[in-house]
Amino acid sequence: MSSLIECVPNFSEGRRPEVIEEIVRAIRAIDGVSLLDHSRDETHNRSVITFAGAAEPVVRAATAAVGRALELIDMEQQRGAHPRIGSVDVIPFVPLGTTRLEECVDLARRFGEQIARLFDLPVYLYGEAALRPERRRLAEVRKGQYEGLKEEIGVNPERDPDFGPKRMHPRGGAVAVGARKPLIAFNVNLASDDLELAKRIAQTIRESSGGLPAVQAMGVLLENPGEPRYAQVSMNLVDWERTGIAAAVDRIRSLARAAGTDIDHCELIGLAPAGALLEVAAQTLRLRDFSPDQALELRLARDR
Amino acid sequence: MSSLIECVPNFSEGRRPEVIEEIVRAIRAIDGVSLLDHSRDETHNRSVITFAGAAEPVVRAATAAVGRALELIDMEQQRGAHPRIGSVDVIPFVPLGTTRLEECVDLARRFGEQIARLFDLPVYLYGEAALRPERRRLAEVRKGQYEGLKEEIGVNPERDPDFGPKRMHPRGGAVAVGARKPLIAFNVNLASDDLELAKRIAQTIRESSGGLPAVQAMGVLLENPGEPRYAQVSMNLVDWERTGIAAAVDRIRSLARAAGTDIDHCELIGLAPAGALLEVAAQTLRLRDFSPDQALELRLARDR
Repeated sequence: MSSLIECVPNFSEGRRPEVIEEIVRAIRAIDGVSLLDHSRDETHNRSVITFAGAAEPVVRAATAAVGRALELIDMEQQRGAHPRIGSVDVIPFVPLGTTRLEECVDLARRFGEQIARLFDLPVYLYGEAALRPERRRLAEVRKGQYEGLKEEIGVNPERDPDFGPKRMHPRGGAVAVGARKPLIAFNVNLASDDLELAKRIAQTIRESSGGLPAVQAMGVLLENPGEPRYAQVSMNLVDWERTGIAAAVDRIRSLARAAGTDIDHCELIGLAPAGALLEVAAQTLRLRDFSPDQALELRLARDR
Repeated sequence: MSSLIECVPNFSEGRRPEVIEEIVRAIRAIDGVSLLDHSRDETHNRSVITFAGAAEPVVRAATAAVGRALELIDMEQQRGAHPRIGSVDVIPFVPLGTTRLEECVDLARRFGEQIARLFDLPVYLYGEAALRPERRRLAEVRKGQYEGLKEEIGVNPERDPDFGPKRMHPRGGAVAVGARKPLIAFNVNLASDDLELAKRIAQTIRESSGGLPAVQAMGVLLENPGEPRYAQVSMNLVDWERTGIAAAVDRIRSLARAAGTDIDHCELIGLAPAGALLEVAAQTLRLRDFSPDQALELRLARDR
């Protein structure tokens, strides 16, 4: 199988379904690309589209998506709760299967250079693809958001884009292009409605406060009509080979039990690499000499 | 994705690697077929080759494999511990992905008719592809083995093949062709060397003695030099959607604990459908609203 790459562009539009449909259509039109998921958030006024394929069709689809978004989403009009710097806010490339992260870094840089030229759009490289170390953190690139960047770009050299003009695109602003490992969004719902407990557990386990490596976590209270209220530990596992699902859940379970409660159930949001789920099975069963290749469909996919 | 079918022919040769290599080469030569596994057993004098692909290339590869085996394995010379009726003893077709079992039944019958004609070989349909109800059980088809069948074929109408001549192929004997669901070979090693306990547990859980549906099980003693001896419950899960890995292991764990011991570890032999392993993860994590489609690579494979 040739290199398999996932692309997860985020668009600053979550209220007009017809706009997202148009962008989805532009992606679907590219041969060799599989559309995996798309979701739209009205509150955040933001949408996420996930697609995958070999490098070349993925770049073509991402380019087409940027083109449509610049036509259809005007940042001068856009308002929303989520931080953003442009119509297409962020475009990460993610290695799947046996693809290496380095291939996605190269791809992100080539792609960034290409859309900067094609659309006269300022491009900032972030994550593993960053050329300036401080830009590894997306929050640094997005500092001040669209409005703040518009004031600083071309004035403050620290805000110079990596590619493209030193001024915002008149409708589309700017875009962050990067490479990262697959991210797993995983929620653990406690058999408790104690929000403070969820927050304490989140703080204990997250890497930024000295917890588990490659884990981001926050505590929230889930309130759905007709359902019990759950205190939830909501996580991003940003490198499951460092901290996997089972390890994170085990830790949360001990902390919950120490506080006199337990886990009620869990939720996987969107997609996860099959390997991360198979690892849970292998650990639970204490499987000796297990390889993800023993999952038939994965073995077949690899051979194709 | 077009229908994905797995084929798992068993050959009555496990002592001459060069013979199995020749057969593997014949299978590999067919475009559109993935070779998934092959294993050779000297004691049983038997080999198993696993390959998969769309219906048409799989049939071509299976036909090529039969042709080579009839040339290279002479049943008049063959001796071994494993029951067998021919050079190619049994050829099951197995549905993968979204393929239905019925497609494999049709395929097995068409393929059986075709190789009977092509090689002048008696073919018995078994499993879900059986035309006579008593032949659903492979043991019934293999009754008396090669030597016994050779005496009865053409004499006893109950042993008439479903296709082909009413006499054995001069070198290759006869073959059983069938369709079945994917089978999971799964061993549970107890933290004990009590063979009688493993046998009692196996008897309690196997379907034939009123245990779990679609479970075959036997108790054996594992003796590997330099390792502790393990009493092992060795299972075939012949329909994991009826009894899955987690359910079988849970049952064995309770029985082991009731006898004062526990499970030490488990082993998955060969390949298993990804769904059967993901189910273990989903149950362990009590994942709400989980679908195997959330495993990225499976989702992608389905879309291709």
